[in-house]
Amino acid sequence: MQPKKNIVHLPVYQPGKPIDEVKRELGLTEVIKLASNENPFGSSPKAKEAIASLLDQTSIYPDGGAVELTAAVAAHLGVEPNQVIFGAGSDEIILMICRAFLVPGDEMITAWPTFPQYKHNAEIEGAVTIEVPVTADGKHDLDEMIARISDKTKIVWICNPNNPTGTMNTEDEIRAFLKAVPAHVLVVLDEAYAEYNMSGKYPDAVALLKEHANIVLLRTFSKIYGLASLRVGYGAGRAEVIRSINQVREPFNTSSFGQKAAIAALQDNNFIEFCREANAKGIKQLWAKFDELGLPYFDAHGNFVMVDVKRSGSEVFQGLLKKGIIVRHDPAWGYPTMIRVTVGSEEQNGKFLKALEQVLSEVAVS
Amino acid sequence: MQPKKNIVHLPVYQPGKPIDEVKRELGLTEVIKLASNENPFGSSPKAKEAIASLLDQTSIYPDGGAVELTAAVAAHLGVEPNQVIFGAGSDEIILMICRAFLVPGDEMITAWPTFPQYKHNAEIEGAVTIEVPVTADGKHDLDEMIARISDKTKIVWICNPNNPTGTMNTEDEIRAFLKAVPAHVLVVLDEAYAEYNMSGKYPDAVALLKEHANIVLLRTFSKIYGLASLRVGYGAGRAEVIRSINQVREPFNTSSFGQKAAIAALQDNNFIEFCREANAKGIKQLWAKFDELGLPYFDAHGNFVMVDVKRSGSEVFQGLLKKGIIVRHDPAWGYPTMIRVTVGSEEQNGKFLKALEQVLSEVAVS
Repeated sequence: MQPKKNIVHLPVYQPGKPIDEVKRELGLTEVIKLASNENPFGSSPKAKEAIASLLDQTSIYPDGGAVELTAAVAAHLGVEPNQVIFGAGSDEIILMICRAFLVPGDEMITAWPTFPQYKHNAEIEGAVTIEVPVTADGKHDLDEMIARISDKTKIVWICNPNNPTGTMNTEDEIRAFLKAVPAHVLVVLDEAYAEYNMSGKYPDAVALLKEHANIVLLRTFSKIYGLASLRVGYGAGRAEVIRSINQVREPFNTSSFGQKAAIAALQDNNFIEFCREANAKGIKQLWAKFDELGLPYFDAHGNFVMVDVKRSGSEVFQGLLKKGIIVRHDPAWGYPTMIRVTVGSEEQNGKFLKALEQVLSEVAVS
Repeated sequence: MQPKKNIVHLPVYQPGKPIDEVKRELGLTEVIKLASNENPFGSSPKAKEAIASLLDQTSIYPDGGAVELTAAVAAHLGVEPNQVIFGAGSDEIILMICRAFLVPGDEMITAWPTFPQYKHNAEIEGAVTIEVPVTADGKHDLDEMIARISDKTKIVWICNPNNPTGTMNTEDEIRAFLKAVPAHVLVVLDEAYAEYNMSGKYPDAVALLKEHANIVLLRTFSKIYGLASLRVGYGAGRAEVIRSINQVREPFNTSSFGQKAAIAALQDNNFIEFCREANAKGIKQLWAKFDELGLPYFDAHGNFVMVDVKRSGSEVFQGLLKKGIIVRHDPAWGYPTMIRVTVGSEEQNGKFLKALEQVLSEVAVS
């Protein structure tokens, strides 16, 4: 009854306090959560209609092949249906990629800080993660990542925009990177925030897929589509790569409700346009105040901003929490004076900025 | 870019045809699916209300710790919250158990035929599955399973009632079995159909959990609770075993909708009582006709019956399909003349029996 040696050190997820409990403990009537990069505008009304339409079919298993959703996403991307795979969030596709490709002793390369699930899953498989610190401006150091590739390297993970820094590697940078990566290495382009991008320099990953056999592209319905509650993400790649990942997929890994809602969400371009524009305005709203307060920040291409509060990030986090604003600060990031804040609605951003200004006056500069 | 050697032979899930397509192809107006052991009565109205209540919260991530649902299930079972874990169906808990405990070269023991996901997941981990044929009356051969345990054995899987045979091992049999299993072997009691049991001899697995440290109990909201579409199953065991499984769990593996619906479903005892009674009547309805037709069948303790049609199961399956009735027949079961039929509503059972009688007259006895 001994678990695998390589998992015994792994942390167990510690459930956060429910918002109602936070309210009660702190005597607050309103709590604004800008901690999980959720869409402040919810989801398309069409997605909600799709969910409601399934209420009399709860007892029926989902379509294990997600045939309709696969067709919709394949058409959306301009690829064949056998080039697409779904997971319970892109989290599960990360799990499946690791489970399909990694054996003990394999190496993989990620940025640091970046999304922690890559390393977590590699550890479960007994693979070694080489973490390459991001550059001073918070971007993936692609040259150094190339330099660290060896015969043992199975996967390189590019989180673009990167979570938590929010920075982006451009199409030119990614193209040069892909040319330098040996063909035996799988490159995963995690584009969870792709739909927010308005830079004009963001990689066209689907075009890259046609040029390189060793790419898997990850996207999600949890961010701009506003369906985080329903757990639907997708991967796209060459058919043979997707086939390997499919070999370790559980047959009913996405729910009927998630599938139907995702199909509907994909069809509502107006909602996506609205969210993209509002997010861009929100970033400017945050930056303007940060400039006024003299706080440096990283470039932001997702729906969140990483800002240097020039004081203990942990203390600023606690100060904001007491005022009913939840943001993110993780000591493991290696940025002791930074916090990550999700771009909310104009009103939420305003309340956050007001609370931040107050907290800054209460916490000593470090 | 080579996948793991031990997965390359695994089959990829082949999506079945959507019911609408089956209707169109066969020129049918009605199709009755008695193939996936789904609840013909749907789910509790309370579960549907719970789903509808979340429509404005689609963009919010689920509670990663499923705190409320954990409390509800722990109270339902009479165990502590840290003894319970949730998965996207019990499928995902099977995956997590294999991922947490198995390393290449390990052995595990299952019945044959039984639920195929145990072996599937063991193969992904590089473990060997020893399959012990069920007895002539379709039950787990517990003595032989004990005899096959070695120093390499990590897990024994007991599917009770067994899928696809529908048979049960009694409390006395399971107790004797557990006494004979060495303490280093994890015993998984997969009780997906537990709530249908009316035999009076079904094991009280929660009591067994208190007597044995090496048990994990699996249950699901996909069967009698009628929530297969939403993917929620649970495992229960000693806190230290559940902790190990939790170390490989993805943080947001169940949806908010699934969690809320499951909590509501758990509270509607009347619905469960109704389904249990209706299912017992349905089994009698099927058996009576099988007796009349001279067809032998296995004992049935779930919501399905395995019947010997004394003809090619594959041909009878096809004959029923043409009449708009979908049942299960799998050549890999090793029962060439048997089909598995889900217990439907009285009306559905009647239509199935009528169609079966016609098909039997058209297919030669083998």
